[in-house]
This record gives sequence, structure tokens and C-alpha cells, in this order.
Amino acid sequence: MPTQTQIGLMSHEELVAEHERQSANYERLKTEKLTLDLTRGKPSPEQLDLSSELLSLPGADDYRDASGTDCRNYGGLKGLPELRAVFAELLAIPVDNLLAGNNASLETMHDLITWSLLHGTVDSPRPWSQEPVVKFLCPAPGYDRHFAITESYGIEMIPVQLNDDGPDVRAIAELVANDPQIKGMWTVPTYSNPTGAVYSEDVARALVSMPTAAPDFRIFWDNAYAVHPILGVVAPAIDILGLAAEAGHANRVFALASTSKITFAGSGVSFFGSSTANLDWYQKLLGIKTIGPDKINQLRHLRFFGDADGVRAHMAKHREILAPKFALVRKILEDRLGASKVASWTEPKGGYFISLDVVDGTAKRVIALAKDAGIALTAAGSAFPYKNDPDDKNIRLAPSFPSLDELATAMDGVATCVLLAATEKSLGH
Amino acid sequence: MPTQTQIGLMSHEELVAEHERQSANYERLKTEKLTLDLTRGKPSPEQLDLSSELLSLPGADDYRDASGTDCRNYGGLKGLPELRAVFAELLAIPVDNLLAGNNASLETMHDLITWSLLHGTVDSPRPWSQEPVVKFLCPAPGYDRHFAITESYGIEMIPVQLNDDGPDVRAIAELVANDPQIKGMWTVPTYSNPTGAVYSEDVARALVSMPTAAPDFRIFWDNAYAVHPILGVVAPAIDILGLAAEAGHANRVFALASTSKITFAGSGVSFFGSSTANLDWYQKLLGIKTIGPDKINQLRHLRFFGDADGVRAHMAKHREILAPKFALVRKILEDRLGASKVASWTEPKGGYFISLDVVDGTAKRVIALAKDAGIALTAAGSAFPYKNDPDDKNIRLAPSFPSLDELATAMDGVATCVLLAATEKSLGH
Repeated sequence: MPTQTQIGLMSHEELVAEHERQSANYERLKTEKLTLDLTRGKPSPEQLDLSSELLSLPGADDYRDASGTDCRNYGGLKGLPELRAVFAELLAIPVDNLLAGNNASLETMHDLITWSLLHGTVDSPRPWSQEPVVKFLCPAPGYDRHFAITESYGIEMIPVQLNDDGPDVRAIAELVANDPQIKGMWTVPTYSNPTGAVYSEDVARALVSMPTAAPDFRIFWDNAYAVHPILGVVAPAIDILGLAAEAGHANRVFALASTSKITFAGSGVSFFGSSTANLDWYQKLLGIKTIGPDKINQLRHLRFFGDADGVRAHMAKHREILAPKFALVRKILEDRLGASKVASWTEPKGGYFISLDVVDGTAKRVIALAKDAGIALTAAGSAFPYKNDPDDKNIRLAPSFPSLDELATAMDGVATCVLLAATEKSLGH
Repeated sequence: MPTQTQIGLMSHEELVAEHERQSANYERLKTEKLTLDLTRGKPSPEQLDLSSELLSLPGADDYRDASGTDCRNYGGLKGLPELRAVFAELLAIPVDNLLAGNNASLETMHDLITWSLLHGTVDSPRPWSQEPVVKFLCPAPGYDRHFAITESYGIEMIPVQLNDDGPDVRAIAELVANDPQIKGMWTVPTYSNPTGAVYSEDVARALVSMPTAAPDFRIFWDNAYAVHPILGVVAPAIDILGLAAEAGHANRVFALASTSKITFAGSGVSFFGSSTANLDWYQKLLGIKTIGPDKINQLRHLRFFGDADGVRAHMAKHREILAPKFALVRKILEDRLGASKVASWTEPKGGYFISLDVVDGTAKRVIALAKDAGIALTAAGSAFPYKNDPDDKNIRLAPSFPSLDELATAMDGVATCVLLAATEKSLGH
């Protein structure tokens, strides 16, 4: 039941009628007793099935890499050279500057923060924990788990505007030029979580080139969705380490990636790329914490992919599953909310999320309404530092996990909640 | 060529003759151009072959645990309930108090230290990093990687005597009663690295019962070899969490274990057991660092073992491979060094190491001589905090990796180096 008029242009009577319509829709929705979940960017079972072969790989008697290393035993802090080479190509990072690790790049980011706090980076005058305050720039909306790490360690988070081609580099350049306590910055440069923004090469170049008051400023270049297009065109990988070195700031970038949304979300391989000096520092500290990553899992992934084209072909299959889901969400949003002008949403070319902006001051209400109707949405404000969405308008939608039928039901319900909350607000409820 | 007389009882002429004999032995040894390695406790290829099935487990279409969880996806911070139950039985830790993690318990220990430093434990008046100094007790000889963690974070290490039934609890009780800066203690309670000491229940009870000046004193109970007997009798698992709770110090113990020396050294599963309050604290912090462990690897291990008896049966196969190696080392040490009284060594009932004590002041020399003859031994002092063996006498032998033939050659060479260094010292060279 689409709303044909802009809610902002409605007379009071029209508004009351619209509110009644949406209240009725909502009551019907509640009778359906749904239990649907759009909270997290989890691959669907159908996507996980694409990697079923991994369940019996590497296979009997297959435990040596090309150099003859017995992958079953201890050692090999850098990870498997052949698998690193596959992702070096995809990520545009030289293989010598790319390590392969365990199942969570989040863990690498966490370690980079704790080690910077307890030891300091190679460019730090002192450990960050001995600074009076440490600040991070947080392009927002952004990834909640990034913000959770910095919040956990008492690092002050400064939100900066995220545009379609990356964050507002002019604002950032001014901040970092003047404040030596700004030690780092979170980014998701390709198909960002949650807006789908793709950093342009100009933005990337500006970020690695800008002068910073802190000698040890670090960009966490979390390329979690580097090879995850939805619309068929892969965003070209930016040679971020090369750009940084060229700009005279070779140590500025910590580059991260993983196969969490390529193979099995919980059982993948993570990657960490950086300058030689940073990697020497990192490996020295990593060697205190572990004797080495799970090399058999790396070998398993190598056998599964074969090479970079194997990854690309595999991602095309993910795209076939994901593209209809993203199209469906956009269609329902357009059909139900297009004319009413109570919401806007991103149209990502890749990644896992759609960022939905509803009427200012109603995101919390929409999420509460949805929850009462059995539709779980990501908590309000999640995409902002300290979970503080200043306009209370942003909702992160994660369409990957539900089936198309469930997704249609859930999104129709979400649209009802958005309209109901908008009419409530207009009526001053 | 055994030395039939105690070197300490030899006349000068006899000593000179003995020195010449061993010099000749050593020159012959060098002509063999060996490259043998007794440095690390690595399982041999033959041992790794015992777990070959893991290379194709869990197998096609097998990705759900008994509760129906899809182990391929994100989540499940505690790890697989069924695998936790298997090791709960083996480790005498209630399943609710035992988590399963990734491939390295060393990583868990590292995280426990960094989180205690940056956040403090549940009983800490302040984060350890805000203390003027933090000290740890280090039963020695002990595990070099433990000591490397505390050294890396500037924690002051205090060596304490390790006896056959555990560390000197009287000395420890006095230290911890009076010094609130002593925040923790490393232990390897079963078949300890490197002496093979097995902590008695009396020692365990004393450690968890003793009053400590620090309210947040923690025992790192690293039960790395809990199910690793060599002589056929398994040391009974001590209910360490129960003993601690009974003594009113439920939060004192961080218990660790892993399958690193049960299945694949680099691709196993780690375990962490502690009080409910400690686990709540740990999981809250763990959830900042990761979305969950590699559950497919946990499922793989569950399928491989089946149950606790499956682990026991598997360890019996390891024992069949390891027992002859340990017997061979002891035989060569006895044959070559027994009469000369220039060395003593432990006779471990389990674990991975033999601890060899040579003439005071000659361990470094022995290791250097061996190195020049192509036999790599663990660096001198490794088993002591700061790599400082006050008597320069201890050498850790790791017999697991080489074949029996290689081991015989290497140990005969080591014996020659021990005798040569002993005669050099007696002659005042």
C-alpha cells in the first residue's frame, strides 16, 4: 500500500488518515509474529554452500606448500607464500608486504591498537598509553566494530563526514595538521560499511599525503570488501602502500583484508599489509603472541581458490546470490517510501549493507517498532562513534542473510515502521 | 667411548688425556657435517601423520554441531559446546567454565596479560599499566615463551626454584604475602617444560590458598601437556578451579590448554578455563577483538576425537613414538656421561623435554661447541627469566622431532661437547 504523497506536504487531515493507515498496517504486521533478522552482515547458508569444498580440503596427504614446508607443524609467522601471492594481486599490495593470518582481521586491528598503546609504533615518540589523550578520526557512518575497539581502549573518537568517494579530506587534513594527539583513522575504502562508499584514488592520495602533527599517524585501511562487487564492476584496487611511500609516508598505512565474506565467515584467512618497517615491528610483537597462524587453513584456501582468478570467479557466484537481494530492498524502499519522501538510502555497488536515512529523530522509534513486530534491525546509532547518531536518522540494513521471501516481508515491515514513525513525528506524537 | 672415571676425581695427567680424547671425538664429529636440531618441542612428521584424517574433516555437508549451529558462519565466542565437553573431562574443568579458541593458547595468555595491563582484571584496583611496577613469579627452569611475554611488556620476573613436585611454595607464599606488586605467576603444572615436573595436589592447593598482598594475583595454569604421558601413567588432572574456589580465591586461576601437541601443532584448538567472573570479563574483551573462533576447526577436531577416550587413545599412539626417543636420550646420556659425573638430567614421565644440567659455567660453551658441529640446541639460559641461567649449566633437550637415528647421532655429539667443555673447565682453559 504505497503512500502516494510527500508526507511533508500533507494537510493535517491527510496526515491523520495516513497515520491511521500505517497504524493498521503495523497492527497487521504484528499479527504475523515474525522473527526476522537484518542486523549483521552475515553470509547466507546459500553463500556458504559456495565454499563447501573447503570442508574436505586440503585432503589426504596434502599438507606441504610449494616450498616443501609441512604446514601441519609450528612456524611461519608470515603465512603461506602462495596464498599471500593470490591476495597480493587482488589487493594491489606487494607479496613481501602482505602477511596471512588467522580467521579475523579484526584481531589484527585490535593487536595493532594494543601494541601501539603498550609499545608505540615505529614512529612513536612514546607508547600511546603514555600520551595524555589519543584521538582517532572516524568517518561516519562507519563500522561499529572499529569504533568498539577504540572505545574499549579509551581512544577519543572524532566523527568526520563520509561522502560517496570517501571522507571529507579537507576537514581531515585540517584536523590532523593541528592536533598531534590524532594518531589514527578508521576506513573501509571499498564498498564501505554501511554506505557502500568507494574511496577515490584522489581521496586515497590526499589521505596518505597530508601533513600530520603526529609523526605516528596511522590509517587503518580495512579493505574488507575489496573483491565484493554487487553490480558486476569491481572497484579497482588502489596501490595504497605505493601511494603512501611515494608521498614520503611509507609507514602511514595498516592495510587489512580477509576471506570472511569470501569463504566461511568464521573460518577464513585474514591479511595484513604494510611497509617493511611496520611489518618488522608487527612480526616481532606477533612472535611474542603466537608461533604462527593456522597454515593448514591457508593451504585449504589456496587449494580452493587456485589463483586470483579463482577468487574472482568465486565472487561472481556470491554476486549472483546477493544482487537480487539488494535489488529487492531498493525496490521495496522505492515502492513504499519513494513518493512519501520520508527516507533516503544508498545504492551500493558492492559490499554487504544499505544505509537507510529516515526522518530526523525517528531512527530509534523505527527500530523499536520493528523489534516489537519481530524484525531485528541493527541498534540505532551503531554506525557512529559512541553509538551516537546526532540526527537519530540512520539505520544499517544487512540484506545478505535472509532468503528473498523473508527479506521482502522484513523490508515491507520496515517501510511500514518508517512511515508510521514519520506520521507520528509530523503529528507531534 | 664412555668416560669411566669421575672427571672431578682425575689427576692432571688423566684430565689432559681425557681432554685429548674428547677433542679428538669432537674433531671427528665436526667432519660429519651434521645439521640436526634439538631446539624446539615440535612433533615429528610421524606424530603429525597420526592426525592425517583432519586433512579431510569435517567432510562434505558436515558443518552443524549438535545444537544445529552452522559452524561456517560468524559467532559463538565460547566455542563448540561438544568439543568443550570433551576437554572439560580431560582437564577436570566444568564445561561451563571452559572456552575453546583458535590455534594458540599462547595467544590467550598474551591477551590476558595485555588486558590486565590496559583494563585490569575483575579484582584489580587499577589497570596493571598504571602500577609503578608489576612483577611475576617464574618457576625456573620454565617455558621461554611465557617469559618472553612478560619481558615484552616490562613485567619484572622473579625466578623461583622448581622442584619435582612443583615450585617451592614456601618461598612463593612469603613473596606474595608481602609484595602487592606481584600480580601473577607462570606455571606448567603437568610434565613441565623443560624438567617434566608434575605439580602435586598439595602444591596446587598451597598455590591457590596462600594469602597474597595483591587482590588480583593470577596463576597462569598452562596445562599444555595435561594428556601427554610418556611412561604410560597419566598424571591425574587436578581440579584447580574447584580448589581455588574452595580456598576462597575463585578468580585466582587462568587455566590454559591446547591440542597443539595432540593434533597439528600449527592448526589445533586452544582452551581457556576460569571462574565465571573471569570468563565474563574475558568474553567482554574478546568480543571486541573477534566475532568468534574458527568453529569449523573445532568441529573437525570433535569429529576426529569423538570423545575424551578418543583423545586418550590418540595420545597412546603419540606415546609409542615418543617413549623410545626419550629412552634413547637417557641411555646415551647414561652411557656417555654416567660415570664421569659431569651432568645430571631429568627423567620426565611426560611432556616434550629433558632438562640437562652440565658442569656449572659450561652450558654456553657446550651449546657453542654443538652449534659448530651442526647440532642446534636451545639457546643457553632459555629456560630462565631474561635468559639468565645464574649457573650457566642448564640445557633444554627436545627429542621429539628428529628420527631415532638422527637423535642418536645428535645426543652422542652433545655428550662429546659436554665432556669436552667439562675437561676444558677442569684444566682452566
